[in-house]
Amino acid sequence: MRIIVVGAAGKAGRAVTQLMGERGHDIITVGRTTGDVQYDISDEAQLARMWQHVGQVDAVVSAAGDVTYAPIDELTSDDFNAAWSQKVLAQINLVRTGLDHVSPRGSFTLISGVPSRDPVISATAAATVNGAVEAFVRAAAIEIAPRRINVVSPSVFTESLDDFGDFFPGFAPVDVADVARGFQKAIEGASTGEVITLP
Amino acid sequence: MRIIVVGAAGKAGRAVTQLMGERGHDIITVGRTTGDVQYDISDEAQLARMWQHVGQVDAVVSAAGDVTYAPIDELTSDDFNAAWSQKVLAQINLVRTGLDHVSPRGSFTLISGVPSRDPVISATAAATVNGAVEAFVRAAAIEIAPRRINVVSPSVFTESLDDFGDFFPGFAPVDVADVARGFQKAIEGASTGEVITLP
Ligand SMILES: NC(=O)c1ccc[n+]([C@@H]2O[C@H](COP(=O)([O-])OP(=O)(O)OC[C@H]3O[C@@H](n4cnc5c(N)ncnc54)[C@H](OP(=O)(O)O)[C@@H]3O)[C@@H](O)[C@H]2O)c1
Ligand SMILES: NC(=O)c1ccc[n+]([C@@H]2O[C@H](COP(=O)([O-])OP(=O)(O)OC[C@H]3O[C@@H](n4cnc5c(N)ncnc54)[C@H](OP(=O)(O)O)[C@@H]3O)[C@@H](O)[C@H]2O)c1
Repeated sequence: MRIIVVGAAGKAGRAVTQLMGERGHDIITVGRTTGDVQYDISDEAQLARMWQHVGQVDAVVSAAGDVTYAPIDELTSDDFNAAWSQKVLAQINLVRTGLDHVSPRGSFTLISGVPSRDPVISATAAATVNGAVEAFVRAAAIEIAPRRINVVSPSVFTESLDDFGDFFPGFAPVDVADVARGFQKAIEGASTGEVITLP
Repeated sequence: MRIIVVGAAGKAGRAVTQLMGERGHDIITVGRTTGDVQYDISDEAQLARMWQHVGQVDAVVSAAGDVTYAPIDELTSDDFNAAWSQKVLAQINLVRTGLDHVSPRGSFTLISGVPSRDPVISATAAATVNGAVEAFVRAAAIEIAPRRINVVSPSVFTESLDDFGDFFPGFAPVDVADVARGFQKAIEGASTGEVITLP
């Protein structure tokens, strides 16, 4: 398969890229400043140029997206808007603009995160945008068939415990190698509209 | 109780306002162009003026929010952004700015809709923003306690079948009088972080 991985230089993205490479797939890596080709998927003009450059693929993977963690009374409209643009609209637009660039039974696999189903203090923006991505995926699945779309929704990464561990007391973390297997299930499997929760 | 109802002139809003009036509560109705006082909750400056005018309340109700229904390949970024601003950010900002205006055990009750859990064709924007509101409510609940927050997530209204019925084949509709009882449960009951699905 020919697979485009957006956010391939990130913690999750590196693990997915490595596993998909080991599986013998042909990978094109994308980031704003990293990867084989540089495009910002939150910018529609760059997204159009990205697809022109990349052409046709069998699978589209996103492991991108930033969200601010802060107490609800410290988060601003700008924080919520940035989380929406970077985590939700960017991923939605990757799908919308990619519809004609994936093979007939090709797949999209997006990324969300645990706070939408199991919230923690300071994660209202994260919960909001992850809930949005997951609901989008369930809805888009019935419209884009036979193309498929799924979302990997991991707990805090073992590799991110130093940065985010304090926000998730008692949560089982997930190794990024297992996150990569979640993406593999979505890409090489046959499910659609699935929220793949990890661990 | 002193209750502010945003969107009180709408289909759901009228039913909530009527039931809460019958229950003996004191209601302040708000809309952009309708209601006792006119404020646009998607505009932060107007929201600040609204709270200055309204003062302290025991319950905050929102029955507002517009979303475009269209096939995924016809929806634009503008459609998704408008749905985010009107349905998600406006309701989140109503909560954020209202935190100091509700009584210690007061409540917020927002509105979402069925497509986040049971999607239909042409509802990807609706699903996305409803999923966002529901995840926000679950997350905000744990931060704003003992203040409470819930969301009413109705199927298509019986009173809206002429406009939206074709989008929801075979879905059980819900009378707005039953939607109003969902709000009553949230306002007069004790739950928090609940997605009240109807029917
Ligand atoms: N870390 C965790 O514990 C955790 C847990 C659950 C979910 N998640 C979610 O998983 C995703 C990845 O997390 P991570 O920790 O792997 O993040 P990360 O290390 O910060 O990597 C993110 C990657 O995405 C790229 N990127 C970001 N925005 C982009 C854009 N607009 N266009 C193109 N590329 C973009 C970045 O590269 P450039 O800088 O070159 O653009 C980077 O390679 C995030 O959505 C995060 O919320 C993380
Ligand atoms: N209709 C259905 O079948 C159905 C089913 C499930 C969920 N829902 C959801 O339920 C909510 C209400 O639906 P509805 O059919 O009752 O809508 P509606 O009849 O259009 O009423 C919406 C009300 O909200 C007010 N409003 C809208 N935006 C506002 C803003 N930014 N600031 C202040 N007031 C605002 C409007 O008054 P002004 O014009 O004066 O601002 C109007 O009174 C919507 O979020 C909708 O998505 C509807």
